[in-house]
Parts: sequence; structure tokens; C-alpha cells
Amino acid sequence: MKKHKTITLGHGSGAGLTRELIENVFNKNFKLPTLDDAYEIENRMVVTTDSYVVSPIFFPGGDIGKLAVTGTINDLSMKGAVPVYLLVAYIIEEGFKIDDLIKITESIQKTASICNVRIVAGDTKVVQRGKGDGIYINTTGIGILPEGVNIVKNKIKKNDKIIINGSIGDHGVAIVNAREDLGLSPPPESDCAPLNELVQLMLSNGDIHFMRDPTRGGVATILNEVQKEINHGIVIYEELLPIKNEINSVCELLGLDPLYIANEGKVVAFAGGNCKKLISSMKNHIYGKNSTIIGEVTDEVNGVYLKTSTGSLRPVLLLESDPLPRIC
Amino acid sequence: MKKHKTITLGHGSGAGLTRELIENVFNKNFKLPTLDDAYEIENRMVVTTDSYVVSPIFFPGGDIGKLAVTGTINDLSMKGAVPVYLLVAYIIEEGFKIDDLIKITESIQKTASICNVRIVAGDTKVVQRGKGDGIYINTTGIGILPEGVNIVKNKIKKNDKIIINGSIGDHGVAIVNAREDLGLSPPPESDCAPLNELVQLMLSNGDIHFMRDPTRGGVATILNEVQKEINHGIVIYEELLPIKNEINSVCELLGLDPLYIANEGKVVAFAGGNCKKLISSMKNHIYGKNSTIIGEVTDEVNGVYLKTSTGSLRPVLLLESDPLPRIC
Repeated sequence: MKKHKTITLGHGSGAGLTRELIENVFNKNFKLPTLDDAYEIENRMVVTTDSYVVSPIFFPGGDIGKLAVTGTINDLSMKGAVPVYLLVAYIIEEGFKIDDLIKITESIQKTASICNVRIVAGDTKVVQRGKGDGIYINTTGIGILPEGVNIVKNKIKKNDKIIINGSIGDHGVAIVNAREDLGLSPPPESDCAPLNELVQLMLSNGDIHFMRDPTRGGVATILNEVQKEINHGIVIYEELLPIKNEINSVCELLGLDPLYIANEGKVVAFAGGNCKKLISSMKNHIYGKNSTIIGEVTDEVNGVYLKTSTGSLRPVLLLESDPLPRIC
Repeated sequence: MKKHKTITLGHGSGAGLTRELIENVFNKNFKLPTLDDAYEIENRMVVTTDSYVVSPIFFPGGDIGKLAVTGTINDLSMKGAVPVYLLVAYIIEEGFKIDDLIKITESIQKTASICNVRIVAGDTKVVQRGKGDGIYINTTGIGILPEGVNIVKNKIKKNDKIIINGSIGDHGVAIVNAREDLGLSPPPESDCAPLNELVQLMLSNGDIHFMRDPTRGGVATILNEVQKEINHGIVIYEELLPIKNEINSVCELLGLDPLYIANEGKVVAFAGGNCKKLISSMKNHIYGKNSTIIGEVTDEVNGVYLKTSTGSLRPVLLLESDPLPRIC
């Protein structure tokens, strides 16, 4: 905490400043068993917790309720766990419309039902007008790890393929368009989706070594976090990156790099072998239609690099902060 | 939701309006297995979640970090569970002092250590200045139910004694004094304390049928909630209620009734037999020194009643709201 005496938006960005806060404040005290989002406690039970402060609370492709369920389900899924239970806690600002609370609650229940997840406990707090921003939601998820599943960073090997299940940057751009009234038509939609089913399919059809969902900080941030903990470099290929034209246009307009933009329905997987069976099985799933290899683990570089279409190598660095606050 | 179109502070009070919101909005969707704070999922594992929005965040007897640990540990304890794991999620307002964040984090770790509870996962979000109030903390607790322990409302029987482990109203009055700068000297201290040890002692030394911690809404609210679900009445005795003189004075000054004021280190237990061994064991514990019977389950009344020192019966009603917002 060498530079900051107070919390900045960057400390919540999921990028470098968040990492610094976790290392220097939280982990110094808590000595967390892992800095992954989810943790196996006992009896193959995996737990995770997340607060959702997205603004606006309703956006094309989802709302804070759907996001609070899918985000937590996805954190469990990245460990290979099957989500089973969910706990939901609301912090509501005085004056919030009860009709909106009903809509959000219905959205939570609908998403949980689709995923076969049972809501078992909750909590409601209300804060005065001006001490919140409509509604914040915390969800805690509990899942069960199927026998034989063990997803850990140190299983990543040289020559592992890096795979993503579809387009990059959709969620962040959908939020920024809705928030800043950019007026894009049709408005870009968030990719907000539960990945529990797709992940189990991947585990059955490929040699998955590690997975992460590229939320806050995007693909670039999670690749950097992973690379720091393995003894290899990572190269991704510009021409293989699935980025929609409209996402590229918005990013160019706003000076953003899609690699750093949050996704809410994407998994980045590190897998062994040629991955043909894996990718073709993923393409059969609704949330994997555009699955593709985007890179590989290699000793030819030290760090994370993007190989551009002209063949040059550009470093993909860990940023201190994310340009878009309150994206999830 | 007949009367309100928007959320009021009362909806977060833990009293009647909160109950209405739970019944008409949350439970209509979630169909929660229980409206108790904690729930047994499987393998004798009990889970609970709570957000803490107390203001001010530092107060005599504790701080939001200590409270976020003890409050959740106490919810697990009320089911008879031994708390084992904790997940911690922060929502921090931009501009919050990092020194205060460190103090709070140390307080969380210290309290968890004392209780032998391990913090296994966390989350940090930051919201813009004016969209929060310093810091809000959510904790989720996971505990293990010892073999043979089964604490459920329907075990409550006629003639059960109602027991509390000490003075009533301390937390709420400590908060209101700190918040409103009433300037009482010495300032009243919160009773904020973890009850996990005391509860296990009680389970070993008495025939405990049911327990609840009288937090938001105080002793009166939880007695009403319990009474609604059993086929008996409840009488408590004014002269047996342990209320400190200074708490009574502040309550008189502010027109508050200590029975409705939040406690954060108290358990109200329903127990069979004469409870002599139970009470004497409780008195040997640091958090049970002033343990006493305050009432009983009876068919002589229908509802919750206070027998005053003059022998008359005064109804103790479920209020719509709590007079003190953001007490926990």
C-alpha cells in the first residue's frame, strides 16, 4: 500500500491494485488457503462468495439478480464443482422500488432454478437514501466436486492449449453502453450466463488442467495472474481472438482494449492434447458455439504476449486498474 | 406489500416490515426451507449469511469487523452448530481510509481466531464516493452440527423456561450513543461477543429446545416470532429482566423500550426442566455471568405478555419497524 492512503475505484477493479490490497491487507491477516475465487473446504465441498454492485442494475442481457447467480455459479464451476446451494444477501437503499426488488428476486430464482441450485438462506439490510445505490447483492455458493476432478494451476503444462468458449468483452461493453447512454443500436448484450453445464461437458471431453472466468480485468488480467504462478510463458494469437465487430468499434471509440474488458459468460481453459474433441463438444453447447483455441503455454516467451497478425510479439501487461468501475 | 411502493428503513429493521418483505417477495420466489437465520444443508453442515451495515463502524465494545464475525458465528450457534469456516466480502466506498480497512481486517481475523474459525474465501468491491457509507461487510458462516443436536421450534413445550445470558439492550444503546453523540460518560458498551462456546456449554448442561439471538428488533421481536409458530403463549416477568440502569435511563430519555433494542452477545433459550444446572453452568462462562430465567411458555395467555412488577399483564407486540436503523 505504498502509494495509497485511501481506497480508489482501482482497488475494486480486479486488476493490479486489487491484487496489492489482497496481498498487503487481507491475506496478511486471513492467510487464505488460495487466492482463487472458490475453495474446497471438506467432503469435496467447494465454497465461494461475491458481492455484486453493477451499475445499472438492469442491462441488455441481464440484471444484477441474474448476474449475482451466474457469477457465483461460474466461480464454483471454474473449480470443476457442481453448484448446489446458494445464499443471497441484499443491501437495499431506502426509496428503492419494490417492483424492481420483485423483478430482481424473480430473476435470481429463475436463474437458480435453471441451474438446479437451491437458495437456502438470505438476509436483508436497508441503508438510508444516499448511502447506497439502489441495491447491492451478495451471493455465496456451495458446490460439490465430482470424484476425480482436481483443477489446480500447477497442472498447467508447456504446450497446453488456451481455449475460450466465445466472444470477448461483451459484458463490459454492454454495461458501459447502458451506463453512459452511448446509444448504440442495437445495444450490445451482456454474455451473462451460467457455465456449470458447459464446464461439466468440458471435463468429460477434454484434459482440462485449469480454468478461470475472465470477469473483472478481462482475459488479459487472468492470463497474467496464471502466468505469474507457472514456470512458463503464454502467447495468444490476435487473429484467433473472437471479438465481435461492434465490440471492437466501441472499444476503439472509447480507447479500451477488449482483452481487459469483463466477461460474465466466458471460461478460459488450459487443456492438454490437441483439444479437437473438447472444442467440438463445446460447440454443441448453447454457451460454447464459438469456442476456439486462442493461445498456448510456451517457453518461447517469459510473460504474457500477443502475437499480432503481422507476427510481432506485443506484451500483455497486468494493469493497475480497470478502466470500467462497477462492472459486476 | 399492501402499503409500500418503495423500500423504507423499516424494511431492514428485522421487525414486522422485514417479515412482510420476506413473506411477500423473497419467500414467494425462493421458497426457503426455513426462515431461521441458519440452515442445515447436508452432512450436518449448517450455513448462514448476513450483511453488516452498522453505523458508526467503530463503537465502544467493537467495530463492524468484530460484529461481522460474531453475528454470523452466533447465527450458526443458535442452531447448535460449531462454526468452522467463514467467507468475507467487502463493499468499500471510494475514499475510505486504508488504515481503517487494516484495523477492521485485523479485528475480523482476531475474532475468527479466538473462535477457531478459518477464513477461506473473500471478495472486494469498491463503489464511488456517495454510493456507500465507508464499508459494508458480508460474512457467510459454515458450521458443523454435533451428533445428537437438533434445535427446532417445534421442540418448545408448555412450561419451558425462557433464559437469557445477561443484560438486555446494550448493543443498540451503545450504537445510538456513539451515532447521535449523546455524550454519555462512560459511554455504554456493546455486548458484541461470540456465543459459540457458551452455547456448546448450554447444550451439555441443559435440555435446550430452541435458541435465538435477539439482534435487530430485540427480545420482544424474537419472542413474537417464536410465539407465532408454537401453540402456546409466552409470559416474561418485568422484575426478572436484566437491564442495566444506564440502559434504562437512555431508553427513557429517547422513548425507547429496551425489549425492542438489539443485542449482539445474547442468546434467548427455551429449555425444559428446572434449569438450575444449566444456569449455574452458564454463570461460569465469561459471556453468561448474569444468566437468568426471564419467563416461560404457558397456556395462560395467547400471545407474548409482560407481567409487570404490580402483577398486571401487558401485551408485548410485534412492531412494524425498529426505531434504530443500521444497528448491525
